[in-house]
Amino acid sequence: MTTTEAGATASSEQTDCGEHVTHGYHKQKGEHLKRLRRIEGQIRGLQRMVDEDTYCIDILTQVSASTKALQSFALQLLEEHLRHCVADAALKGGDEIDAKVDEATKAIGRLLRT
Amino acid sequence: MTTTEAGATASSEQTDCGEHVTHGYHKQKGEHLKRLRRIEGQIRGLQRMVDEDTYCIDILTQVSASTKALQSFALQLLEEHLRHCVADAALKGGDEIDAKVDEATKAIGRLLRT
Amino acid sequence: MTTTEAGATASSEQTDCGEHVTHGYHKQKGEHLKRLRRIEGQIRGLQRMVDEDTYCIDILTQVSASTKALQSFALQLLEEHLRHCVADAALKGGDEIDAKVDEATKAIGRLLRT
Amino acid sequence: MTTTEAGATASSEQTDCGEHVTHGYHKQKGEHLKRLRRIEGQIRGLQRMVDEDTYCIDILTQVSASTKALQSFALQLLEEHLRHCVADAALKGGDEIDAKVDEATKAIGRLLRT
Repeated sequence: MTTTEAGATASSEQTDCGEHVTHGYHKQKGEHLKRLRRIEGQIRGLQRMVDEDTYCIDILTQVSASTKALQSFALQLLEEHLRHCVADAALKGGDEIDAKVDEATKAIGRLLRT
Repeated sequence: MTTTEAGATASSEQTDCGEHVTHGYHKQKGEHLKRLRRIEGQIRGLQRMVDEDTYCIDILTQVSASTKALQSFALQLLEEHLRHCVADAALKGGDEIDAKVDEATKAIGRLLRT
Repeated sequence: MTTTEAGATASSEQTDCGEHVTHGYHKQKGEHLKRLRRIEGQIRGLQRMVDEDTYCIDILTQVSASTKALQSFALQLLEEHLRHCVADAALKGGDEIDAKVDEATKAIGRLLRT
Repeated sequence: MTTTEAGATASSEQTDCGEHVTHGYHKQKGEHLKRLRRIEGQIRGLQRMVDEDTYCIDILTQVSASTKALQSFALQLLEEHLRHCVADAALKGGDEIDAKVDEATKAIGRLLRT
């Protein structure tokens, strides 16, 4: 939101794989931002509900919906990561694939909170 | 979004138990709003990360933190609900307690996504 | 480990609230044991799948089913606990309700793994 | 458990990628079975707890431990799957990688229960 132009320019050299811009990522960028703005709206809705003394259970239902939306966003991101970065690492050969799989598994573990 | 004073006034007749204002709820209100504003900041941070092509795994780490913060908020709310509304229903006697416990269990189930 | 008849007899003096036998608990006991035996069967099924080199994804699907069955069992137990023990604590008055709600909330938190 | 010798023989032609035996999978097989037998023991422990009228909260704690152990097993399996099957699909080229990533993402989604 407050991303500076300079930041946006610099990022065009970066990528979701930490090296080059992958087109898959950029194609989805608009959709990701739209999802996140919707989630931001849900969180602001939660503040309004608390402020207006909405019944607890109704607030909890909204929390469940927001959590689900966040998990769904994470899953989409993960899918692109596996398709581009993990697959790229496999093609490159060497130890890269082990590092990438290890990293992805740890991220999934954090999502599962095991 | 822009909770009016009128809204706040009207809500003083409501309550987290759906009937009267319980003081426990109001005491925590400021803390709840603070937590939610912090979560809103995390979601805006996620938008910035996507916009700046941050590495997927770093975005996923931030999603996990936001989900955790939401679950933690839900748990706090649930605790107050059990302490005030469910306990009140038990004191009132009658069928009220069954309805309240059933409702709370369903809310917990949604949080667990079973 | 191998629950003796004596153990079963002794337990009739105990209760799910830590004091007296509540009938709600005993009524559900058979159903709980049936659910748990089904879950035990699922876990043995998982061992068979690993032993027979079943495709990973199919094993993961079975793990999800078992986890869901466990969460569903937990939710049922929690419902009875809220209906009997937490409600009883409310009727007794005093600090008991705070301790019971605190304890139940912590258990829910562990289930959510926040 | 009731795995027949015939079954075990047949499975030696199968693999975790649905085609050939990958050695990575077989190296971990003993560890997987050990983990699953421990989880089976936990589930039997739960039956004993219910049978002996153990306090609900203590049963819930044990359920959380079993769920965590199952998720941890799933994560280990997923890691091997990504390292072997998904990476293999990337090397093969063609549409295989898309199908494998799609399948893995759906399995992760089921684990997250989104």
